[in-house]
Amino acid sequence: MDAVSRIEAALSSALQRADGPPCPPKLLAAMNHAVFPRGARVRPRLCLAVAAACGEDNPIVAETAAASIELLHCASLVHDDLPCFDDADTRRGMPSVHRAFGEPLAVLAGDALIVLAFENFVRLSFTPQRMSALLSVVARAVGAPSGIVAGQAWECEEAVDLAHYHRAKTGSLFAAATCSGAAAAGVDASEWRELGEVLGEAYQVADDLRDAAADADEIGKPTGRDFVLGRPSATRALGIEGAMSRLEALVARANQAIPPCRGAADLRALIMLEAKRLVPKSLARHAA
Amino acid sequence: MDAVSRIEAALSSALQRADGPPCPPKLLAAMNHAVFPRGARVRPRLCLAVAAACGEDNPIVAETAAASIELLHCASLVHDDLPCFDDADTRRGMPSVHRAFGEPLAVLAGDALIVLAFENFVRLSFTPQRMSALLSVVARAVGAPSGIVAGQAWECEEAVDLAHYHRAKTGSLFAAATCSGAAAAGVDASEWRELGEVLGEAYQVADDLRDAAADADEIGKPTGRDFVLGRPSATRALGIEGAMSRLEALVARANQAIPPCRGAADLRALIMLEAKRLVPKSLARHAA
Repeated sequence: MDAVSRIEAALSSALQRADGPPCPPKLLAAMNHAVFPRGARVRPRLCLAVAAACGEDNPIVAETAAASIELLHCASLVHDDLPCFDDADTRRGMPSVHRAFGEPLAVLAGDALIVLAFENFVRLSFTPQRMSALLSVVARAVGAPSGIVAGQAWECEEAVDLAHYHRAKTGSLFAAATCSGAAAAGVDASEWRELGEVLGEAYQVADDLRDAAADADEIGKPTGRDFVLGRPSATRALGIEGAMSRLEALVARANQAIPPCRGAADLRALIMLEAKRLVPKSLARHAA
Repeated sequence: MDAVSRIEAALSSALQRADGPPCPPKLLAAMNHAVFPRGARVRPRLCLAVAAACGEDNPIVAETAAASIELLHCASLVHDDLPCFDDADTRRGMPSVHRAFGEPLAVLAGDALIVLAFENFVRLSFTPQRMSALLSVVARAVGAPSGIVAGQAWECEEAVDLAHYHRAKTGSLFAAATCSGAAAAGVDASEWRELGEVLGEAYQVADDLRDAAADADEIGKPTGRDFVLGRPSATRALGIEGAMSRLEALVARANQAIPPCRGAADLRALIMLEAKRLVPKSLARHAA
């Protein structure tokens, strides 16, 4: 099975835990709406790629971690889209969860997806050491003081430390993807943190570029939001050309940050492919 | 140390994970506002009491579970108080989190507390079997299909199954308290589920009575909300007298549901004490 099929199967399997007669039907529908149809699955693919590069011995472990990471990512999107944050009407080319199901169910679906992401680890009770390591890595990436929730909370502060903001809001879950891929293969996770953080920063710059230069149809959500909401962004700070240079430098740094492992060449190829895919079409044409 | 001191210490210790220079200060303040000053700590006290009754061999295990359960309870209160749900201005005699910190930080503080509750289990990696059992019991109590998030989501359905609604919204976390107390002591958790569910139902009836008959000063939050919001409640269905009879019957059933254990007498005494404490003063006078 290819990576995307493995991820979709792991997500379906996790969502089945929530399914059943006692579940309020609209909650279940809202949770499914948030997770399917699928996004790019960038983080779980990174997790599986690192696990493979590290020579994983049991694919279920990395698949479980990958699914949990994606569930947490989806939960954060549902809450970020709420009227009190981005007030986004669309996501992945569909109505956002609160537009489709109302605000109460959007809050609850996000909550339920966070819980499901952690409950999902119970299936790893056959390998308790790895379960514990993965729980630790993944929780660190989403909560306080330095996970995605903390990253989002920097937007509520008057004085924002930009490095903390980006590292928490985007870098943390990418670091969880690389670290959990390593931990799933029984390898020391700490060596893989830098790669994840650099890739997270690259992804953030690419996202800022897409927000500034892509059109809404291309990325399936409203554009120009950073500017409208006065949020810190790479294009605001560096301009389009400057942000493009920064992205290239980060991708080069990511390639250097791959720890020695038997699948390093495949991982490097994947990173280059992703970097190309993430640049908005108008800028890719411009660069060519 | 008495139960309440153990719980406060375990909660402080958990909250310290979120503390530190990279945490956005307002997020940390909102999380602390949600957890301290303390509420009645009914669920974690129940967890510790069951662990003691089952002859626990390491107090840290039950304290960890108790703290996680209370963190999840606090998170659910923060989200339940949001304008899109109860729109409550006060909680535990203080401004609700969104009134004190704004809606975005209330959503994020709730999210961060859910994550922290699960991250908290990492400290049990020295006893991985119990960690895994507790993770499973606690996650089941909060997520979909039948945890507190699902209970709250029943309020968004046109056709509400009242039994599912109450069992999910209140019973589930009480069941987690009794089951995790047992699991923390290395005892089969399933035997302790009925006690928790019955106590949860009793607590729900008492809460409905307090909403209908107490004044806001006594319970530290607005009263009459069930009526205003048209929500299902025991006093609505049975009247005040009927609800009082139902509460007595449930307390009697709870006493019968205590599985054989060496601390059964102490547990029975605690349940009677709690039952008296939960009845609104005006009705207690009336009953006397």
